[in-house]
Amino acid sequence: MKILSLQTPVSENIDENIAVVTKYMGAGCDGTVDLVTLPEMFACPYETKLFPAYAEEEGGRIWQQCSALARKYRVYLSAGSIPERDGFCIYNTAYVFNRDGQCIGKHRKAHLFDIDVPGQYYKESETLSPGNQATVFDTEFGKMGLCICYDMRFPELFRAMVAKGAKLVIIPAAFNMTTGPAHWELLIRTRAVDNQVFTVATAPARNEKGKYVSWGHSMIAGPWGNVLMQMDAREGYAITEINLGDVSKVRDSMPLLRQRRTDIY
Amino acid sequence: MKILSLQTPVSENIDENIAVVTKYMGAGCDGTVDLVTLPEMFACPYETKLFPAYAEEEGGRIWQQCSALARKYRVYLSAGSIPERDGFCIYNTAYVFNRDGQCIGKHRKAHLFDIDVPGQYYKESETLSPGNQATVFDTEFGKMGLCICYDMRFPELFRAMVAKGAKLVIIPAAFNMTTGPAHWELLIRTRAVDNQVFTVATAPARNEKGKYVSWGHSMIAGPWGNVLMQMDAREGYAITEINLGDVSKVRDSMPLLRQRRTDIY
Repeated sequence: MKILSLQTPVSENIDENIAVVTKYMGAGCDGTVDLVTLPEMFACPYETKLFPAYAEEEGGRIWQQCSALARKYRVYLSAGSIPERDGFCIYNTAYVFNRDGQCIGKHRKAHLFDIDVPGQYYKESETLSPGNQATVFDTEFGKMGLCICYDMRFPELFRAMVAKGAKLVIIPAAFNMTTGPAHWELLIRTRAVDNQVFTVATAPARNEKGKYVSWGHSMIAGPWGNVLMQMDAREGYAITEINLGDVSKVRDSMPLLRQRRTDIY
Repeated sequence: MKILSLQTPVSENIDENIAVVTKYMGAGCDGTVDLVTLPEMFACPYETKLFPAYAEEEGGRIWQQCSALARKYRVYLSAGSIPERDGFCIYNTAYVFNRDGQCIGKHRKAHLFDIDVPGQYYKESETLSPGNQATVFDTEFGKMGLCICYDMRFPELFRAMVAKGAKLVIIPAAFNMTTGPAHWELLIRTRAVDNQVFTVATAPARNEKGKYVSWGHSMIAGPWGNVLMQMDAREGYAITEINLGDVSKVRDSMPLLRQRRTDIY
């Protein structure tokens, strides 16, 4: 299975953002790629006050363009995340499309990013509502989990996805210049090690002039926690070949999931 | 609060093993140390077939000598772990003594180390029985958790200790030359980050000639995941000053524990 990770820059112009995704998909989809992954909020600057204006209902314009790209290149497309409007609520929502362009997965960020650490204040809940589920979807390669950025900080959510059968977890994300160097690689690797899954995290390219500066460093870890791919901060793409059979190999040799003591916690 | 970590070598001779602990406590306890930590199985080679012969009941000879050392130096002593006999069962048991030499904490390893990875086959359950609880004990500095080595691979156990009030978790441990380079630092740091606690892991010194070769690298991580101390593989000791107030600082700025979505998992 081949994964194309797109670390795209994000501007205030939706059409430009779609255009850069289209460009990199054209460059990277060589007929052997199976899954393409985009960053969190790939079509909208990561600023809480902008989310309402950029939000669209499910099936809206960005959604349709992503569906068309998946169909055009005959790939699974994890279309990062975008602000979704549903009635009076706005969500940080990730969609996944299959090779026919059908939406087969949808996750609303369940843990909103509300933090106040030195150098970084951010409060997603100013404009967003949280999702209410752990998300897993089916593919020809088996089941995959889907969560967004800050969701990654909660080991319980990974256990819930794995209980539903996930062998690979897709994580559109955008850590910043405080949390990135401190925790990005650490968490992506440990979620993989603890749950013996592949973790596929995709971030926007760094823009030093943006209000929210992304750490970048899109990466993929294997079920033993090995780093299979890690980008730097610049825009671009990477293709990584993985063997999903590694999941059962690791789970057989160190049967962590069976060894859990659910009688004591 | 000052922590003295003892990374001691382990021989087949119990008296020698106690003597090396006594020597390093004499060298390191300068009157300002508050907590001394020893490695997993510090008095007995880490071989499943040897555990029955080395096992003693609670309050036995090694237990008494550790109690006396805690009292002598007026420190809290996490006496690593030793094989404990209780009726027909043997456990991998960690004791903690207070400054008066009273046993205030006891944990029986709850997750036995049964793995079969390339380069490393090990099956603790051949001779050991598992403990049945998450362990937290009280000190003048607040509550501390206690678990042993492979227990560290289970995020649920940390959540259970933290739910009981732990702000620091003591982990006598002995990763090997396969799991050590792959996961040791990763897990010790991530358990700290996820739970916003200090993690204090203490390992035996490496002995290349031993049947089980310890990775060493005793370390302490802070609640932001920063490495406060890490030794190499050689025998010796390290003194680390920590500020337990950092726990509430980190928990206030990024309130992960309150942000958990227990309604969806």
